[in-house]
Amino acid sequence: MGPTREKAGGERGAAWNPSGIVTLLTDFGTEDPYVGMMKGVILSAAPRAVIVDLSHGVPPQNVRVGAWFLAHAATFFPTGTVHVAVVDPGVGSGRRLLVAEDRGHAYLAPDNGLLGPVLSSAARVFELDPARHARSGASRTFHGRDILAPAAAALAQGLSPEECGSGTVAPEAGAAFPRPREIEAGRIECEILLADRYGNLILSASPSDLPHFTDAGGWIVEAAGRTIPVRGAYSEAAPGELLALVNSYGVLEIAVREGNAAARLGLRQGDTVVLARTS
Amino acid sequence: MGPTREKAGGERGAAWNPSGIVTLLTDFGTEDPYVGMMKGVILSAAPRAVIVDLSHGVPPQNVRVGAWFLAHAATFFPTGTVHVAVVDPGVGSGRRLLVAEDRGHAYLAPDNGLLGPVLSSAARVFELDPARHARSGASRTFHGRDILAPAAAALAQGLSPEECGSGTVAPEAGAAFPRPREIEAGRIECEILLADRYGNLILSASPSDLPHFTDAGGWIVEAAGRTIPVRGAYSEAAPGELLALVNSYGVLEIAVREGNAAARLGLRQGDTVVLARTS
Amino acid sequence: MGPTREKAGGERGAAWNPSGIVTLLTDFGTEDPYVGMMKGVILSAAPRAVIVDLSHGVPPQNVRVGAWFLAHAATFFPTGTVHVAVVDPGVGSGRRLLVAEDRGHAYLAPDNGLLGPVLSSAARVFELDPARHARSGASRTFHGRDILAPAAAALAQGLSPEECGSGTVAPEAGAAFPRPREIEAGRIECEILLADRYGNLILSASPSDLPHFTDAGGWIVEAAGRTIPVRGAYSEAAPGELLALVNSYGVLEIAVREGNAAARLGLRQGDTVVLARTS
Repeated sequence: MGPTREKAGGERGAAWNPSGIVTLLTDFGTEDPYVGMMKGVILSAAPRAVIVDLSHGVPPQNVRVGAWFLAHAATFFPTGTVHVAVVDPGVGSGRRLLVAEDRGHAYLAPDNGLLGPVLSSAARVFELDPARHARSGASRTFHGRDILAPAAAALAQGLSPEECGSGTVAPEAGAAFPRPREIEAGRIECEILLADRYGNLILSASPSDLPHFTDAGGWIVEAAGRTIPVRGAYSEAAPGELLALVNSYGVLEIAVREGNAAARLGLRQGDTVVLARTS
Repeated sequence: MGPTREKAGGERGAAWNPSGIVTLLTDFGTEDPYVGMMKGVILSAAPRAVIVDLSHGVPPQNVRVGAWFLAHAATFFPTGTVHVAVVDPGVGSGRRLLVAEDRGHAYLAPDNGLLGPVLSSAARVFELDPARHARSGASRTFHGRDILAPAAAALAQGLSPEECGSGTVAPEAGAAFPRPREIEAGRIECEILLADRYGNLILSASPSDLPHFTDAGGWIVEAAGRTIPVRGAYSEAAPGELLALVNSYGVLEIAVREGNAAARLGLRQGDTVVLARTS
Repeated sequence: MGPTREKAGGERGAAWNPSGIVTLLTDFGTEDPYVGMMKGVILSAAPRAVIVDLSHGVPPQNVRVGAWFLAHAATFFPTGTVHVAVVDPGVGSGRRLLVAEDRGHAYLAPDNGLLGPVLSSAARVFELDPARHARSGASRTFHGRDILAPAAAALAQGLSPEECGSGTVAPEAGAAFPRPREIEAGRIECEILLADRYGNLILSASPSDLPHFTDAGGWIVEAAGRTIPVRGAYSEAAPGELLALVNSYGVLEIAVREGNAAARLGLRQGDTVVLARTS
């Protein structure tokens, strides 16, 4: 082993030091064996990988919700984690596959905007070479299993994102989240990004979008003809009462304590609500 | 290392010898990435932990069903397992968080009755110190991720339940299951605790509640105007036929062989049925 | 260690070399803690086992769908994997339990046809001795937890399938998939085996059943009064358009690009469609 090789190895090591953890985020659901197939492929090549499900409940083909989940969950994992995201309506077309490295994490996904929100300006993004990673007999309908899973195993085993791809590229920006907008002084319109399992309505606005925001008054939410107070926690509302609060994603949400706000208000993804300043 | 330290270590070791396994029981569902976030936090602090899902299908805020699942599933795991249970309608309020040790297992949960049924009289229960375990920037809405997950990692790494908490406390008793009651001689009323995936109706009565109970006659079940025979196994009924039997929880249930008793009878959690002696 | 023993060990080693991976395929769903209980039993006896969910979404008691999932997913795992399949309407009856070895994989399942499609003609199938593996206090309603899980742990720890069972047997053939049949020249009728999460309709026909099949024309699908073209990938149809293609199972399916074919056509498992030659 000569000095050049050693130096390259040292530089690679600094950039990519795998933890052995691989996370999976898909729109496959868990009824079918598609997720299990991906795990089999990963474990065949990386038998010591620790595979963790981020979620397989992304609504079918909903790149925006997938991007939201990934952007908010990936950073809870240790550096060296490989995140595989598959919400891929363009599978089998000419759309590219990407491999990226950002702040010590690696990402694999189709180039359809899924990675946009999770990546920082420091990210290095490469085009994945499908031929290099594809299993023999790879399908045209399941690149998650046939190309991304083998690539994830290679990353978990130590291949760097740079070595895994070929040439830096600019990813598609597609999945940007809607921004809140001021519709008149002290009134800000935002969008419902998704409803979670509890029927909590996740809004496209965070406290930093709202001047002088506190949970002690000063802002209310207007939704479906109702005026909803802002609280600090679910437990500050009475059971069955509507409230808005800063949730565990760090954004505003509308909830019903021990109830379901989506069902109560008849609202869903894409509907708009207004945040209004009261003082 | 002096003798005092060694002795303390030895005593701790006897009480708490972690297996490295962490189980998760929540009402989060698996559509959202909330469970994945908790796993990321645990693996960040305890990279070799083996994390197992007990269930994330507890109905939202249903502490009683959560307590049932935990009480019946935890003991199938080896001693040294850390069980994290999060059904937490009071998150963000003054409700305490608990850490407990019982027969070699450790438990983490909010103090709302969730731990009542799983703990024996030998359990030692401590109040968890949130400030000690909380992640920086901890939310007021997701203590499962921000406090209990770091505490679970610490337990899996060897910190004892006693060291993890501060002072023995008596837990809330809230989630006790309804007891069967004799409404007249030979007639015992009990409650449907839950319906499982098959539509089997799990009853709040076990063979020890029923004098001279056998699966060879002597008792029948009256439910929704129907008289239902007791069998020893599903396969002793004809396909499509109603039966009652002692199930894998060790309690009575009403089932339809290769069918759905909840749908057939129109019964659900909280409804009552009668067990009647026939001889 | 004498030469006889060494030889036996060597022969065993050649036949069964466990990877430590155990897959689970059931109709339990994931709402209840039944899957978690099985994992606890396996980890109690085999603490280093890596347990992977193939699917728990097999429709209740649907042996055919379970057999399909198993046959198409098991082979993505490395040799030495133990596959436990529990779709078991006959639990508690006299139906046998099986342990099998095939091309380096081990299988455990009730003898009801579940293993038929996954096993090759080279498989060796043994009857499992329930008494040998049963946990103390084993139920008559949950052999997955009480007999198969302990047996899976033993296999993962190195016991060979042959040692685990007693005597070669011929398994039930029950779950064979329907075969396509030529109803007139150039017209082949097949069946919908299942609809997946996307509403894709999986058909009981593969390209090898269709003379001169290509995705460049020559065949169309007739279903629910519609004529549906064959494409090479979802992305070759316009969004919302019906298409047929060879899917990641390697068989024909009917899909709607970025939509749900089952809902669009009102078709479901067991319905028939026709594949027609156009040139």
